[in-house]
Amino acid sequence: MNGAESLVQTLVNCGVEVCFANPGTSEMHFVAALDSAPALRPVLCLFEGVATGAADGYGRIAGKPAATLLHLGPGLANGLANLHNARRADSPIVNVVGDHATYHLQYDAPLTSDVVGFARPVSSWICESKSSLAVATDAARAVQAARAAPGGIATLILPADTAWNAAEQPSGPLADIRAAEVAQATVDAAARRLRNGRRTALLLRGPALRGAGLEAAGRVRAATGVRLLCDTFAPHAELGAGRVPVERIPYFAEHIVEFLRDLEQIILVGSKPPVSFFAYPGKPSWCAPEGCEFSALAQPHEDGVAALEALAGAVGAPAQSTARVVLELPGMPGGRLTPSGVAQIIANLTPAGAIISDDSVTARYPLLQALGAARPSTHLPLTGGSIGQGLPLAVGAAIAAPDRKILCTHGDGAAAYTMQALWTIAREKLDVTTVIFANHSYAVLNIELQRVGIGAAGARALSMLDLHNPELDWVQIASGLGVEASRATTCEAFASQYSSAMKSPGPRLIEAAV
Amino acid sequence: MNGAESLVQTLVNCGVEVCFANPGTSEMHFVAALDSAPALRPVLCLFEGVATGAADGYGRIAGKPAATLLHLGPGLANGLANLHNARRADSPIVNVVGDHATYHLQYDAPLTSDVVGFARPVSSWICESKSSLAVATDAARAVQAARAAPGGIATLILPADTAWNAAEQPSGPLADIRAAEVAQATVDAAARRLRNGRRTALLLRGPALRGAGLEAAGRVRAATGVRLLCDTFAPHAELGAGRVPVERIPYFAEHIVEFLRDLEQIILVGSKPPVSFFAYPGKPSWCAPEGCEFSALAQPHEDGVAALEALAGAVGAPAQSTARVVLELPGMPGGRLTPSGVAQIIANLTPAGAIISDDSVTARYPLLQALGAARPSTHLPLTGGSIGQGLPLAVGAAIAAPDRKILCTHGDGAAAYTMQALWTIAREKLDVTTVIFANHSYAVLNIELQRVGIGAAGARALSMLDLHNPELDWVQIASGLGVEASRATTCEAFASQYSSAMKSPGPRLIEAAV
Repeated sequence: MNGAESLVQTLVNCGVEVCFANPGTSEMHFVAALDSAPALRPVLCLFEGVATGAADGYGRIAGKPAATLLHLGPGLANGLANLHNARRADSPIVNVVGDHATYHLQYDAPLTSDVVGFARPVSSWICESKSSLAVATDAARAVQAARAAPGGIATLILPADTAWNAAEQPSGPLADIRAAEVAQATVDAAARRLRNGRRTALLLRGPALRGAGLEAAGRVRAATGVRLLCDTFAPHAELGAGRVPVERIPYFAEHIVEFLRDLEQIILVGSKPPVSFFAYPGKPSWCAPEGCEFSALAQPHEDGVAALEALAGAVGAPAQSTARVVLELPGMPGGRLTPSGVAQIIANLTPAGAIISDDSVTARYPLLQALGAARPSTHLPLTGGSIGQGLPLAVGAAIAAPDRKILCTHGDGAAAYTMQALWTIAREKLDVTTVIFANHSYAVLNIELQRVGIGAAGARALSMLDLHNPELDWVQIASGLGVEASRATTCEAFASQYSSAMKSPGPRLIEAAV
Repeated sequence: MNGAESLVQTLVNCGVEVCFANPGTSEMHFVAALDSAPALRPVLCLFEGVATGAADGYGRIAGKPAATLLHLGPGLANGLANLHNARRADSPIVNVVGDHATYHLQYDAPLTSDVVGFARPVSSWICESKSSLAVATDAARAVQAARAAPGGIATLILPADTAWNAAEQPSGPLADIRAAEVAQATVDAAARRLRNGRRTALLLRGPALRGAGLEAAGRVRAATGVRLLCDTFAPHAELGAGRVPVERIPYFAEHIVEFLRDLEQIILVGSKPPVSFFAYPGKPSWCAPEGCEFSALAQPHEDGVAALEALAGAVGAPAQSTARVVLELPGMPGGRLTPSGVAQIIANLTPAGAIISDDSVTARYPLLQALGAARPSTHLPLTGGSIGQGLPLAVGAAIAAPDRKILCTHGDGAAAYTMQALWTIAREKLDVTTVIFANHSYAVLNIELQRVGIGAAGARALSMLDLHNPELDWVQIASGLGVEASRATTCEAFASQYSSAMKSPGPRLIEAAV
């Protein structure tokens, strides 16, 4: 057994089932070792940002890490933007990054770089294996670090000789570092706050925002009337009929201020105080009303679900949430296609249980509104603001949940960053329907240009936000990458194409000319 | 005048003419300021790796920096791989990276990241402006740092409020930090070495490998018989008829050893000792013969051209190089298309003065062989080993040299990393002909798999190197991105398509089915 074989078997022993890979020469032994561990599924990506974004999507849905396999510092570098997004989602990921053999680094060959330096801004754990004998234990620690609550990015750097030299045996899994228990005193303090007569909200994030956590929050509301809020870009939210309703914090600073203005106290459950996404001249960064008191029921690394259940008991809540979202499907629009027409059709036709990887930028608002009362779905938004996450995330979500329909809603400018993901969707025959909102513009920047206080922008400035010259033809791009594609310019055409995509499994792309 | 206007005017004052941009909200004031400085040409890119690779190509051809405009840490991160390549090419680049307003950073909003941390592994100079009043002087220092010999990557991080707050005036250019003069004693020592009877080579890089430097090296050879060598991936080389012939060091370790085996001393001119690109079990990393003595005529930051001219004088060289490459165009092949057929047709039909951005991986060997004796051209290879450089580099080269034909030769797997560059080629109507060697494989990895000592690889391992499922259709991809494209499966078809591309200006792509 060599170091590479000890790696892949250790990953399998620790519950890692998938490896999103874009390997090179220094990873050839790891690639060869894949045949020794059939329980580890390799998924080839044409670009590393697809691999890391896919690992994020897998982690959000599977609740456990996939591995990536990346080629030295530049390979890791290409994956950093989506690792930034994954870090903001608290997604568990194990990056395996090959490097030059330990004895080769001294020569500063062309691909030599500061791999640890590249890894540091996005990683919660970094280790460079010193020998093939250490790879198995290092890999087990990497998985443990990735699984530690609330989920972390563990980067394991493996010099090529740690792959090809002899190893002894794979490691077994290390004990999970579970979410810490919230003290009863903290629960009691929250219960007292909920009874002090002040206008209060619970701001939910992570596991507290779904399943048992959300149900407990709904019970607390039933007993106390507390508002339930979630972040603008909550990494993983349950939408649709039957769910406990949660108010989503708006995007723009002035809207957040308006949204929060009545609140006198906010209790955080795995979340942070809401702030403006960007700074704007003359607008606030801190958006809570003056004097609004913040306290935490649970920090992100703590067990917010158990804390909410304890809180529900402490406030004498009923056994179930009394409020549920009622199914309300929008009518089917006709005529010229618009973002809100697309949203209504999607809400109308998407089956229950779908997962929505949403990188739709300005089209997000009508979409979330329509989906809020549609059939139940899971919503995975762009968490870290680095656009180009949606398609990769859909890859990972589809592999984590092969029995669910995956919908990827994407702005055209954003989709251009990681269009290579379409190839992996085709190669793995994933059940992903991609809808490109083709407005041929960085539309959000036209809004932002005004909001940052620029009056009449000049022609050159405006040309930097314009994607008309030439127009991206997503039908050709998707076809060239192996995905069946079509274009819709009317609501009727979009409804027909989308309906067909929902009814038959497999890769599909619809360019929605909005 | 605000900070953003002081930036763009300072860049213009310092000789920066082009800005490869992929901006976002935090850069809106910089975008707006573009209209106040018509001498700065903005070039929009759909992905940041295109912007940084284009700046590399521009720098290699123009001999001075372009700026990039990138959106916070993740925007910079997407550009890092091609900045790694640029660093290995000693290309001058000024990165302008927007960040959150200074007072906004404390809130850790979703796009907040360690921008300096991302910048460090690739930058020779980093500065975060503290106020709008500092932007102009910081920008002038950034240009000075990028222009300092041999060329550096200067990263200027500009919080959004340094853009929108008031500035006083733009800065003028700072004095260039020119290449240091080589001491006469060093020249004399090299002259003595050339007369000591040992078998010697000059290993040339940077300006020493072209123009006056190469001519002086040719004169030294005429007087002393010294071998003239260049690196496998010399960032900028002059090829073809009329040039002083230079031997290129091979790629694989065992071939380098064979190539250097007779040498007793190597004199470095702006270069480093040759080493293996990767480490392989049982193969050497250090490739020079035992006892071969290394000395430096010029370090990379020193004036190797003047040193070579002084050396030519010291060894009593003739006024001109006696050896010149003689034009030898290959015959036009027929039948099934192969990499060497493509290379012969390219060598036959490419006009004098073309610039070749070469990311053709395994197809590189026949190409360089054929181009060596063809019409004079400039060769820009992949310098840092991070594939996906070729198309972005072609964008920058085309903007730096609008009167020259640009040829971009690309492996298909490599081109998939940065295919978005085709859109910028179309948008700017650049005179770039792209040839994709479509072997539907990471072909070099099939070679490397054997070379690293793996015998019979399994099916899963081999599938990680295979791009057949599905095949990338480059005609559709290029058309979707706005570039006229065609496919050739025979030498005759390729010759016809390539000939047509050479005769008419503008963007073209040919998928060469090899």
